[in-house]
Amino acid sequence: MPLPYRYLTSLMLRYNGKGILVDCGEGTQVALRRRGWSPKPIDVILFTHFHADHISGLPGMLLTMGNAERTEPVLMIGPKGLARIVNSLRVIAPELPFEIRFLELSEREQQIDLPGEKDFHIHAFRVNHNVPCYGYAFSLDRAGRFDAARAQQQQIPLKFWSRLQKGETIETEEGTLYTPDMVLGPPRKGLKLTYTTDTRPCESIVRYAQGADLMICEGMYGEPDKAEKAREHKHMTFTEAALLAKKAGPAELWLTHYSPSLIHPEDYMDSVRRIFPASRAAKDGRTVTLAFENETK
Amino acid sequence: MPLPYRYLTSLMLRYNGKGILVDCGEGTQVALRRRGWSPKPIDVILFTHFHADHISGLPGMLLTMGNAERTEPVLMIGPKGLARIVNSLRVIAPELPFEIRFLELSEREQQIDLPGEKDFHIHAFRVNHNVPCYGYAFSLDRAGRFDAARAQQQQIPLKFWSRLQKGETIETEEGTLYTPDMVLGPPRKGLKLTYTTDTRPCESIVRYAQGADLMICEGMYGEPDKAEKAREHKHMTFTEAALLAKKAGPAELWLTHYSPSLIHPEDYMDSVRRIFPASRAAKDGRTVTLAFENETK
Repeated sequence: MPLPYRYLTSLMLRYNGKGILVDCGEGTQVALRRRGWSPKPIDVILFTHFHADHISGLPGMLLTMGNAERTEPVLMIGPKGLARIVNSLRVIAPELPFEIRFLELSEREQQIDLPGEKDFHIHAFRVNHNVPCYGYAFSLDRAGRFDAARAQQQQIPLKFWSRLQKGETIETEEGTLYTPDMVLGPPRKGLKLTYTTDTRPCESIVRYAQGADLMICEGMYGEPDKAEKAREHKHMTFTEAALLAKKAGPAELWLTHYSPSLIHPEDYMDSVRRIFPASRAAKDGRTVTLAFENETK
Repeated sequence: MPLPYRYLTSLMLRYNGKGILVDCGEGTQVALRRRGWSPKPIDVILFTHFHADHISGLPGMLLTMGNAERTEPVLMIGPKGLARIVNSLRVIAPELPFEIRFLELSEREQQIDLPGEKDFHIHAFRVNHNVPCYGYAFSLDRAGRFDAARAQQQQIPLKFWSRLQKGETIETEEGTLYTPDMVLGPPRKGLKLTYTTDTRPCESIVRYAQGADLMICEGMYGEPDKAEKAREHKHMTFTEAALLAKKAGPAELWLTHYSPSLIHPEDYMDSVRRIFPASRAAKDGRTVTLAFENETK
């Protein structure tokens, strides 16, 4: 339920000029505007599942994207039934200046790559809720470091270095083939963000949050006596989320998707941090820029 | 478009324990909660028309009413197509603990009375937008003053006075019939509220706002140079609304439904008040209690 100072749970990723939105409950477009971000560059909208708090803001968001004169297609990704549900909601947003493309997830675990983004990957993984629900992991590969000594050793002409470093394969007029791996060291650590809400703790979350830079996970209840309620409603407690993080080992854990009955999430963070110290009770508008780690050699 | 500090236009009336909601755009349930009002007693939801900014918040509102354990039926009133559109939106709110009843307006002007509310009337009247759109006038009758002298004169037994005053008709065992008009003076001025958005100025508005205690009217644009744009989009300017009020003579005019481009409505109120002095630029959450006027004799 949206509250005056707490909108419904949603995540906006910005990468390489793209906007990627995960879930769009009532008021998401207002939260986005409050953050000062435009809805126009949203190229991809993913849904974890179709409970109203994760999709009720979609018709308004689409109309606002249309008012912002977006004309490029929007890719929507979600569980089976996505097209039917979105088209049903579009009874109040029938005319849009852009096309909507649907990708309905058919596997329990599925990798999605976006056209023209060879280093960026989306992994959808089934979690355990009372309706089909997915978590998403977003990863960005990072190529190896440029190795000038290797390039020289292989007598690669200096004029090709920059293009090879950027990942281009070059064939000379004489038929010599130069590939990026000839000038690059082994791939370096990239970036990874894992997002999961509306689920009981499950093994797929641990696997897909392994070594993430940021793990965003639901924490429906902070109070220890709500453990039974969490099981019943297929949600989790703060400490259950912390135990998942302890197994997965992300750099940081953010809790979100609080019950409306949970007024002060911070009150319950001590016990969370005893299990997984790098934990935060996220608030609306919380933002971070994830950057590649400094080169160490 | 909902803005961080301006939700979409909506009106909540509370009368005799009932809640009556007019329009329900995205975020209406948040605005209601901010005001501290419960969504549970909403017995009637009226729609002026089906543009998304007037109905996009409905699925979330219905779910929240369900969470509040409402079980009594809800009456929805609106233009033709109401049931189809609401049922389409309910793809994300399929299970509710209460029944929804639909009343689709079939006439250009139509009176709707609610069961058990003989003094309260809703009048729907067509206005002039680019889709079928209605304004609504709400009126509450007020019976005449109790006239003890008349009751005595007609030798009506004292024990019946209170029941007759409350509007009851009484037949004694001997077959004598006593009716309220035997003890009441002529009907007194009741209350009237008129609400209209998304329309060009039109004659029906003047008629239904005649002598209203409060006229709430759209004012899409404050800037005088937006008159052409108002005509084109079938909306009105502040001064057009003021001219309607001048003709209808309500006790007070509130402007609402501002364009997102209109940041400071108050800037344009001087010219409005030159036409109709009792004018206000309404803001989110603005509330008034309308009371019967004091008895003068």
